[in-house]
Amino acid sequence: MKIIRSPKQMQKTAWRWRAAGRSVGLVPTMGCFHEGHLSLFRRARRENDIVVVSVFVNPAQFGPREDFAHYPRPWKRDRRLAGKCGVDVVFHPSAKALYAKGHQTWVDVEELSRPLCGAFRPGHFRGVATVVAKLFQLVQPARAYFGRKDFQQLRIVQKMAADLNFPVRVVPCPTVRERDGLAMSSRNAYLSAEQRRRAAGIPRALQSVGEVIKFSSQKPISPTVILRKARALLRRIPGARPDYVELVDPRSLRPLKKVAGRALVATAVRLGRARLIDNRLVGRE
Amino acid sequence: MKIIRSPKQMQKTAWRWRAAGRSVGLVPTMGCFHEGHLSLFRRARRENDIVVVSVFVNPAQFGPREDFAHYPRPWKRDRRLAGKCGVDVVFHPSAKALYAKGHQTWVDVEELSRPLCGAFRPGHFRGVATVVAKLFQLVQPARAYFGRKDFQQLRIVQKMAADLNFPVRVVPCPTVRERDGLAMSSRNAYLSAEQRRRAAGIPRALQSVGEVIKFSSQKPISPTVILRKARALLRRIPGARPDYVELVDPRSLRPLKKVAGRALVATAVRLGRARLIDNRLVGRE
Repeated sequence: MKIIRSPKQMQKTAWRWRAAGRSVGLVPTMGCFHEGHLSLFRRARRENDIVVVSVFVNPAQFGPREDFAHYPRPWKRDRRLAGKCGVDVVFHPSAKALYAKGHQTWVDVEELSRPLCGAFRPGHFRGVATVVAKLFQLVQPARAYFGRKDFQQLRIVQKMAADLNFPVRVVPCPTVRERDGLAMSSRNAYLSAEQRRRAAGIPRALQSVGEVIKFSSQKPISPTVILRKARALLRRIPGARPDYVELVDPRSLRPLKKVAGRALVATAVRLGRARLIDNRLVGRE
Repeated sequence: MKIIRSPKQMQKTAWRWRAAGRSVGLVPTMGCFHEGHLSLFRRARRENDIVVVSVFVNPAQFGPREDFAHYPRPWKRDRRLAGKCGVDVVFHPSAKALYAKGHQTWVDVEELSRPLCGAFRPGHFRGVATVVAKLFQLVQPARAYFGRKDFQQLRIVQKMAADLNFPVRVVPCPTVRERDGLAMSSRNAYLSAEQRRRAAGIPRALQSVGEVIKFSSQKPISPTVILRKARALLRRIPGARPDYVELVDPRSLRPLKKVAGRALVATAVRLGRARLIDNRLVGRE
């Protein structure tokens, strides 16, 4: 496995692969790998000639009061895990190399960046879209892999790739969960043992939404009614401060006025030092 | 010479060229070719295996009260001229094909888009940067050619390519002028014979700035002093309404407080139905 730190060298290497007709699968990450990441690496391994994992804690997607400085960076462990999954190249640039002095170009996926997390993290998705656009140019992947846990991010990257004609297939991958249902996240490490136990209430609250819809005799049902139970369950987790819990259209991410077909229930909950997100597709086809 | 209208087909074709190791030169245009365009085609012809000219009157770069509807589209003539210059492919997509319903992704080169024309045409350079980013993905050029007449546009495209790591060399090309010095522009066609004659006063005003700097005994000189004569000359053109005439740093496009080294004098002047822009590098190395 090769470690590449220079963006220029990454692009040169990618160029050679493409000239040789080899397909590249890219998994963009911020490091601190868990089973969720590894499942993406393995899928990329199965579907491409070359697998590149980028490890970059992207300053542009953190707000001034967010956890950029404290985000865990267990580089040696990450390198070992990537090697075990058959990754060919870990691209690990410095912030200075990726954002040169005077950087001023931003990619904005407007409507999709506004609701849900976008309302609580101004500029976050602009930072995500921009760095992914840059990685697409540097790595020139045929496929790029993103987890469904960050559903809004996934939709934004899909839309950006379509709108800007990037010749990349954005591949959505299932959320990997702990035994008690908590979605895996590098930020789970911020939780105390007590908070960690309580965090399982988050996926349970989302599950309850699925059940309310399933067993309701009304169709369509109003989101207010559906979300009532989820909100109550979240409020019952000691110390949890939900940013939002919403039912949205899975394509547009716009709030639903009534739930008839498929819907996405999504939440962000602050618990101790962590801000945890999760979502679930609910409703009927 | 081949005409391609479908973005998908363009991308597929470009992919085949790249796989075959052939270099592509792209000249993005809005059609209505004049000698300025043709000089770019010829240069692209000399420096690349394949030459692609895009012809697309980009709605995203026109304001609501601008000349989008009236912009000249002499398609048959353009096609003939491109053929004569040895162009391989004219890419001529529809607005519907290039901006699908629900398009919402925009590329913004922030600081460089603010001064000069950016202050008078809000959203203009966002539209330019976005369409050029799309064309770069669809045509996958090794080199892209832009005239210096649209100097701010050139700087924005250069900066975008650098900031987003596009593997494209942006090649600046000299402004081509009429015999009386007027910079060639498709919009010159909007002028009456009388206005056309008067328009030659615009490059003369810019030239005067160069002379003031050349013959000044002071160094550095204040821009106010330097621009006084240019403004007076522009005001003397009957019917001319200058949007601005400014002395800026040629890299940052920020207004200069004093002129010591190289400077860019740039102007936009409305004359009849036309809005004409021009610029000139002045000062000492």
